[in-house]
Amino acid sequence: MELLQDAVKQYGPLCVGLDTDSSYIPKNILSLYENPAFAVLDYNKKLIDAIVRDKTACCFKVQIAYYEAMGICGMEAYSKTLKYIKSKNFIAISDVKRGDIASTAEAYARAHFLGDFETDIITINPYMGFDTLKPFLEFCKTNGKGIFVLLRTSNTGMVDIEQRVLSASQGALQNSMRVLDVVGTELERILCEMNKIFPNQKCSPCGAVVGCTEESDAQFLREAHPNLFFLIPGYGAQGGDVRICATLLKDAGGVVNSSRGILCAWKKDALLKEKRNSETLAMEDIVESATRAALLAKKDLMNCITKNGAQL
Amino acid sequence: MELLQDAVKQYGPLCVGLDTDSSYIPKNILSLYENPAFAVLDYNKKLIDAIVRDKTACCFKVQIAYYEAMGICGMEAYSKTLKYIKSKNFIAISDVKRGDIASTAEAYARAHFLGDFETDIITINPYMGFDTLKPFLEFCKTNGKGIFVLLRTSNTGMVDIEQRVLSASQGALQNSMRVLDVVGTELERILCEMNKIFPNQKCSPCGAVVGCTEESDAQFLREAHPNLFFLIPGYGAQGGDVRICATLLKDAGGVVNSSRGILCAWKKDALLKEKRNSETLAMEDIVESATRAALLAKKDLMNCITKNGAQL
Repeated sequence: MELLQDAVKQYGPLCVGLDTDSSYIPKNILSLYENPAFAVLDYNKKLIDAIVRDKTACCFKVQIAYYEAMGICGMEAYSKTLKYIKSKNFIAISDVKRGDIASTAEAYARAHFLGDFETDIITINPYMGFDTLKPFLEFCKTNGKGIFVLLRTSNTGMVDIEQRVLSASQGALQNSMRVLDVVGTELERILCEMNKIFPNQKCSPCGAVVGCTEESDAQFLREAHPNLFFLIPGYGAQGGDVRICATLLKDAGGVVNSSRGILCAWKKDALLKEKRNSETLAMEDIVESATRAALLAKKDLMNCITKNGAQL
Repeated sequence: MELLQDAVKQYGPLCVGLDTDSSYIPKNILSLYENPAFAVLDYNKKLIDAIVRDKTACCFKVQIAYYEAMGICGMEAYSKTLKYIKSKNFIAISDVKRGDIASTAEAYARAHFLGDFETDIITINPYMGFDTLKPFLEFCKTNGKGIFVLLRTSNTGMVDIEQRVLSASQGALQNSMRVLDVVGTELERILCEMNKIFPNQKCSPCGAVVGCTEESDAQFLREAHPNLFFLIPGYGAQGGDVRICATLLKDAGGVVNSSRGILCAWKKDALLKEKRNSETLAMEDIVESATRAALLAKKDLMNCITKNGAQL
């Protein structure tokens, strides 16, 4: 996580999301490949090359769901995408949102921190309780890995559970504490634990997922957790606001993910209108379009950071 | 889910959990296979054969974490295990506990209800909100699939979030409603919705995961949700009580999972002591031991059901 914080200083806070569903690739391009997963891998690799070349992003986030949906070939494309990111010395975040009882969580930790699906950082769902985080934290302590725990997600449904206010009658709980604040409190406890183990580390290996879809909550969570590093979804296609990103990037900072806004940029790219209509788009065209969209996203974020007084 | 309810009547409520970690197979047996995943698949197939032959269980639950931990070969073993269960006309529950924003949940639904990893029923984590359930419910409506949503899990950490009491000041919320009761309320709403679409169906395709580790909660949840079908973890190695299972099996009923208690039965089997000590166990030995453990688990459950007045 510390390496990621350093990478933000070097390349800016944009995280390119490789949530590459095969439907994000034009049909005429897909038809050139034996299997949609091969097209996805090729798109990923060419986009990674361009992002690394232009220094547009500090890391890549790979959403495993889209690869699982393509079966075994998809899982091979997932594994190869992670290996390709590593070969470029860039940091990979695997968006897996796993969460299970400790013995099973231990298997998930091995699955994503070792072997074919090895990655640097994974996202974790804390719903089943904090015993379920422990196997992942062991890898943070001993293998330099990191986790982002769901704190406040960017979807509308987050009001259903995350935002529920808890009863104040429960012992030490402060008034108007929400479910998500219980998670935040645990992340602070983990921060203290990690600071004791690694006193020279600038950044806890256990960060938080905080969506950029609501300003007041973003301010509250940034102030409540100044030392937590954030993974920020919701920017771009999900309608999140760049000013909210700037709020969340203050203090310990974070990375801002954009997936569909970049991967599907070709669908709205005026420069590609003719080729799109005649179904003659080439892989190079959609990669260039995504590359331009990523550069624009980076500029957008950097401008807003400067205006809002956040520092990288 | 209706088919599973019927299968319980035919075979009893035991669900055999194929959470087959390679460490659950003796080293001398593992060494005979080129890859641990091949040994796992072989163990699974031979155990499925024996369970189907003896009619010991109504279904199998496959915990994907242990297969993910073995990488691509593991995912192939996972896929083949599901196909093998299907070939025997038995029902497969995939314990994946996925949960993500709707567009990603849609990819997870395709991943587990179609293609290489196709299964009959999956487990779902509802933490991110009820919009995240919709893509899975679509498959329940149109493809005959089912889901079990986490309601009350069997791990100690379930006090951290699931059991938190909510503030009564929040509009229509009843007093002392917990986080998990919000999930229960949503499952009842889905039940009504499904009853309208399928008025002749005896059982909602959307059931709940309820652990058998606490009697009073089991009684409360069975009474609160008489028409929900339960997946019941915690029995066996996790220390859950068979009497609590009997409580949960009343009304709409459910299935009781046992994984390690069956898969690792060879480790404590008195009949195998000599072979265990001399490291001469064969695959057939551990399969027979697991088969006997499953038969005992079934007997244990059936006896307790009869005593406690539950009906299958």
